[in-house]
Amino acid sequence: VNSMHITASVFINDDERGLHADYEKWLEGLAPHAPTSHYQHNRTCEDNTDAHLKRQVMGREVVVAVTGGRLDFGTWERIFYGEFDGRRRKRGYWSGSLGSSTPKMCMLPLLMMVTTHTSLLHL
Amino acid sequence: VNSMHITASVFINDDERGLHADYEKWLEGLAPHAPTSHYQHNRTCEDNTDAHLKRQVMGREVVVAVTGGRLDFGTWERIFYGEFDGRRRKRGYWSGSLGSSTPKMCMLPLLMMVTTHTSLLHL
Amino acid sequence: VNSMHITASVFINDDERGLHADYEKWLEGLAPHAPTSHYQHNRTCEDNTDAHLKRQVMGREVVVAVTGGRLDFGTWERIFYGEFDGRRRKRGYWSGSLGSSTPKMCMLPLLMMVTTHTSLLHL
Repeated sequence: VNSMHITASVFINDDERGLHADYEKWLEGLAPHAPTSHYQHNRTCEDNTDAHLKRQVMGREVVVAVTGGRLDFGTWERIFYGEFDGRRRKRGYWSGSLGSSTPKMCMLPLLMMVTTHTSLLHL
Repeated sequence: VNSMHITASVFINDDERGLHADYEKWLEGLAPHAPTSHYQHNRTCEDNTDAHLKRQVMGREVVVAVTGGRLDFGTWERIFYGEFDGRRRKRGYWSGSLGSSTPKMCMLPLLMMVTTHTSLLHL
Repeated sequence: VNSMHITASVFINDDERGLHADYEKWLEGLAPHAPTSHYQHNRTCEDNTDAHLKRQVMGREVVVAVTGGRLDFGTWERIFYGEFDGRRRKRGYWSGSLGSSTPKMCMLPLLMMVTTHTSLLHL
């Protein structure tokens, strides 16, 4: 399962809102959005360099075991899509839409449409 | 090979104790355990939010090539299980036990029980 | 696709020089090379502990979907080999050579010689 976007991550961790808020705050500390002039990449008329950095910390993809046709997770493992830019419209397989009104960062549970024959979610 | 636990990592790097001590010190700098009130997730009666963060830096899983029925590593590559919480009893395939007396962080070499037909270690 | 070296990464992100410079500067901030005496691992006559740390942030490997015999990337996704030590001669499948004159850190696009039957690049 991979994100196909270079400012987003697919990761596995706990489904707990407080933890996701902690991730966002922590990532902002490790790779601050501002001042945007701090980053050379932003000279290409982007201002999302911090999102490229945050994505590397959280990872691009996960490999999930499938046992007996079902995703084989640990007790608390849940899979999430983490968007760190938030202004792009993404094609996706989840319910709802990530449009221009999405917040700067958001973490969404992925609908599990993976089968034993499909190891990739096009997001 | 994945950890199945959301405060632990499976990673590949050098089998050298000094390096592992460096990882622990470095991770504590990036994602400090205290003050525990700093993290929203800890309001759920947990105090291990830092372990959830450290695990994201070190990664959840590795994908190892198998050539001729053997794990195909680089010269210095060895596989490790990194536990960043340390107070949970884990089910595992390694020798010894990770019980309540384990230190806050520890990094253990994984016994290599992976075969060409088994790509997942249940830890 | 994995790096087989414990001070290097294979990662997927944008093919933009400014971004790669941002990565190098950011990683140097997260895991400084100096003072080298700061790291226990360097007591083994190494001075590249920072490279072992940087590699964990950027990741060891990527898993790329293959659709119809071609690598199935997102619009801006490109695959890179990131060397964070830079003084080792590496065996590799790319054009040119990473010899002793390579800079401390460098990020090279990987030549795509992966086929549907080869999921590993020996670098």
